[in-house]
Amino acid sequence: METSDTPETEKTPTGIAAQDWDTAAADPQYRAAVVDLLGALAYGELAAFERLAEDAKLAPTLEDKAELAKMASAEFHHFERLRDRLAAVGEEPTAAMEPFAAALDGFHRQTAPSDWLEGLVKAYVGDSIASDFYREVAARLDSDTRDLVLQVLDDTGHASFAVEKVRAAIEADPRVGGRLALWARRLMGEALSQAQRVVADRDALSTMLVGGLADGFDLAEVGRMFSRITEAHTKRMSALGLAA
Amino acid sequence: METSDTPETEKTPTGIAAQDWDTAAADPQYRAAVVDLLGALAYGELAAFERLAEDAKLAPTLEDKAELAKMASAEFHHFERLRDRLAAVGEEPTAAMEPFAAALDGFHRQTAPSDWLEGLVKAYVGDSIASDFYREVAARLDSDTRDLVLQVLDDTGHASFAVEKVRAAIEADPRVGGRLALWARRLMGEALSQAQRVVADRDALSTMLVGGLADGFDLAEVGRMFSRITEAHTKRMSALGLAA
Repeated sequence: METSDTPETEKTPTGIAAQDWDTAAADPQYRAAVVDLLGALAYGELAAFERLAEDAKLAPTLEDKAELAKMASAEFHHFERLRDRLAAVGEEPTAAMEPFAAALDGFHRQTAPSDWLEGLVKAYVGDSIASDFYREVAARLDSDTRDLVLQVLDDTGHASFAVEKVRAAIEADPRVGGRLALWARRLMGEALSQAQRVVADRDALSTMLVGGLADGFDLAEVGRMFSRITEAHTKRMSALGLAA
Repeated sequence: METSDTPETEKTPTGIAAQDWDTAAADPQYRAAVVDLLGALAYGELAAFERLAEDAKLAPTLEDKAELAKMASAEFHHFERLRDRLAAVGEEPTAAMEPFAAALDGFHRQTAPSDWLEGLVKAYVGDSIASDFYREVAARLDSDTRDLVLQVLDDTGHASFAVEKVRAAIEADPRVGGRLALWARRLMGEALSQAQRVVADRDALSTMLVGGLADGFDLAEVGRMFSRITEAHTKRMSALGLAA
């Protein structure tokens, strides 16, 4: 059990994190958990592609539209890598993704942005939280899966683009800040509620997350992980000029 | 003046088609026409990206959705190449694209597919006609512009995917064929009406197309070009199992 506050990512890998996929996947429960994780991430990337392409329609200028289309295209290429990885380990990608479609579609349906700025905040906040979560989990995965997950979480350029545009909008009209702060809280609430739904539904995945199957991942550590993710969220809200 | 029925693409380049960009662009009217052409094509690719991403939502399965997302992403990369080319020749890409936004947006607004099959027929028919047109024009352009235009018209996989799915749907329910044949005629009508709007608005472009500015492109040849495009459309409709 890990009791310090050192982020998991800074430690030398031990346990499963020191193994490659072939070794780690000999355990069928670990294998099932990773297939779940890759399926959830793959569907998430495909849904992100759709959402960004949709939000591109709200763009006020052609440059902004092209910028969102570029991000959407980058998400699609991430999806391709995850799908190819699932196929390479002998899993049917669609079967791996489908258990997560309802939760992710539900999240996006509940949080359809009503304008360009809400879309930007959602892209920034939503992807940052997802990215933080997957990075935390990645540190506990076998080396091959970890490398893939970290590669597809590479920033697709959302951050600086969104921060710049949202800050400018708040400077031009400070009332915008209050509305967007509420919006960001709603996003966080919906994300948590859908995440709970996934954890309740997927045994292998939740066993890995809270059952100590992967290295050093017990319930206390999950609590600390959520603290770190929430702190990072608060910092990002400040960067946008919003109260968290 | 060209009087045979040999497709332009099979001839040895003469006139402007034998020149590179730097030589041909010394004529300001030719330069303006090519900037128009690249701007129209770039906006067309960006609009195609949006439309395919939108149609991906209508996909009946996750595999179909991923297939459309892949095409959308390919269109986006074509857009990037055209935008970069405009910038490389010292033009502001947005300024070059904007004159064509209204006509292309109008086309897509008037022809929003109401279901998955209509979306597939539109992707196939619309892109094929646009592609035929640009290929005909490309044969008359300077060598550098021609190479770029032909590269971005590379099939993004629409054809075989759409033909396979539409044929299967018509086999399963022949009544679908009648509805989709009407739909394809509407698409053709809208495309021609928006094309006329563009030609009426853009002097440099229409002078190149019908004024004989580019090599061998007089009014009679434009007539033959439209015959070839219409014949190709009829053949494609048969391939789909539809009466044109």
